[in-house]
Amino acid sequence: MGILVVGTVALDTVQTPFAKVKNILGGSAAYFAVSASFFNKVKLFSIAGKDFPRKFINFLQSRDIDIKGLLIKKGKTFRWSGRYTYDLNSAETIKTELNLLSHFNPHLPLDYQNEKFVFLANIDPHIQLKVLKQLKAPKLVAADTMNYWIEHEKAALKRVIKRSDILILNDSEAREFSQQANLIKAAKFLLTLGPRLIIIKRGEFGCLLSSRTSLFYVPAYLLENVLDPTGAGDTFAGGFLGYLAGCQKVTETVFRKAVVFGTIMASYVVEDFSLNRLERLNKKDIEIRFKDFQQMTRF
Amino acid sequence: MGILVVGTVALDTVQTPFAKVKNILGGSAAYFAVSASFFNKVKLFSIAGKDFPRKFINFLQSRDIDIKGLLIKKGKTFRWSGRYTYDLNSAETIKTELNLLSHFNPHLPLDYQNEKFVFLANIDPHIQLKVLKQLKAPKLVAADTMNYWIEHEKAALKRVIKRSDILILNDSEAREFSQQANLIKAAKFLLTLGPRLIIIKRGEFGCLLSSRTSLFYVPAYLLENVLDPTGAGDTFAGGFLGYLAGCQKVTETVFRKAVVFGTIMASYVVEDFSLNRLERLNKKDIEIRFKDFQQMTRF
Repeated sequence: MGILVVGTVALDTVQTPFAKVKNILGGSAAYFAVSASFFNKVKLFSIAGKDFPRKFINFLQSRDIDIKGLLIKKGKTFRWSGRYTYDLNSAETIKTELNLLSHFNPHLPLDYQNEKFVFLANIDPHIQLKVLKQLKAPKLVAADTMNYWIEHEKAALKRVIKRSDILILNDSEAREFSQQANLIKAAKFLLTLGPRLIIIKRGEFGCLLSSRTSLFYVPAYLLENVLDPTGAGDTFAGGFLGYLAGCQKVTETVFRKAVVFGTIMASYVVEDFSLNRLERLNKKDIEIRFKDFQQMTRF
Repeated sequence: MGILVVGTVALDTVQTPFAKVKNILGGSAAYFAVSASFFNKVKLFSIAGKDFPRKFINFLQSRDIDIKGLLIKKGKTFRWSGRYTYDLNSAETIKTELNLLSHFNPHLPLDYQNEKFVFLANIDPHIQLKVLKQLKAPKLVAADTMNYWIEHEKAALKRVIKRSDILILNDSEAREFSQQANLIKAAKFLLTLGPRLIIIKRGEFGCLLSSRTSLFYVPAYLLENVLDPTGAGDTFAGGFLGYLAGCQKVTETVFRKAVVFGTIMASYVVEDFSLNRLERLNKKDIEIRFKDFQQMTRF
């Protein structure tokens, strides 16, 4: 089955201790879609301006991503600019320019409304809710968010979470939302809001998958050289949902393998800026690192 | 085969957001010995003063630990006092009183010199070197250290490391020693100093085992309630070496299982102050959590 992703496409400016790059392809939906496209057919729904470079559109299409839902409007594309220090684990946002995103009123194309696997990438929860209303019969909805929405739109966000099967967020967001420093307690709290699965991402420390009856810990795939951690979380979600959507039955075993595929995709994307590393990635690379990771974690 | 540990016994004063406890049993050798005693016979070599409470000696003996080498001298026992905030991952040292430890000149009893498995717990590397010289035919030596010795006694520490099979240290120490922010690079550097195995502990984020030919990642066993993280690293080392010493052959598979047993022991010790949790622990608890952990990490 195919996957629908709703989120942002962006022009990012990223500064790390190693380099500064301007106006590169970014955005939660872009990272997710490219990552998921290694596993399944993806439909992307988002908005961009006339300034969105043709080469980025070509790249998305080269990944066989359906971009009928990528609305190109008069105006400017969403822009994010951020900085990392040597502690590559958390970004400092320098500037966010919503631009066209501030008037984004999603109307999904008909075939988009019928998709079974849906990822609500990080975006205003009111937009996420509008998308949820347009879905005909989703089989599995996963949602992501960020601290800004937790702080400013908690009520709307709670409604999104209630209608989602899986909530994916990072450790600081889980702690902030639940008001619990302890991650197991945070996950337990978030489970009471509706989802049957909580995935807490811990950056270079791996992630934690929690359901009402089980816990799954997975360490990150450590790398010698990380160039740019931007988009790692969405790339993770892309590998996760991409793998899930291709499975006949969604069992605990399948969830776990999906988390590992997410981990592998994230480990690749941070090796270069933007989606550059995924541009030169193939299925075989993914299989190799998956086996590598199995080998590195087995006891 | 039995195990020899050389390190400190201490009277600790520990303050956490939950409680403050005074003059409790602490010290690297004490934590290690009690943890390893669940797996094997342990000989403890250390020094304490007349102020060292009889009940602590009784407890060590109740664990069947050979304390012939615990020298009780006129004077005061080593004391450490520290504080944790809600981020329980790192302690702030309030005060260190070396007391008798500053004149500690180790002379191992004869049967101690013949031990095959040796843990040089965190202590002045000059003492570690003196111990190394007295060993007749060690089969496997593991060494731990701390930032203070890296900063003030690096040359002596390097000689200890050169003669050790395994170096166990935490992430910040590995980074400081190697001058590498990246842990894989840090481990590679440390391997050039002599040991065939480097174990980098990452607190609540698990640990990393690195040899010249393989890597092993293991997440920590997450807990809902951590009361006091003091001694987690030495307790880890105790489970690790305790399990190793009981194995016929020390293979990669055995190393990995040993790391997991170390992880399990550490997960128990932090559930209470001092060694209180291990005092009411049994072999069955260890087996149960080991299986639990297997279940929580398998994919």
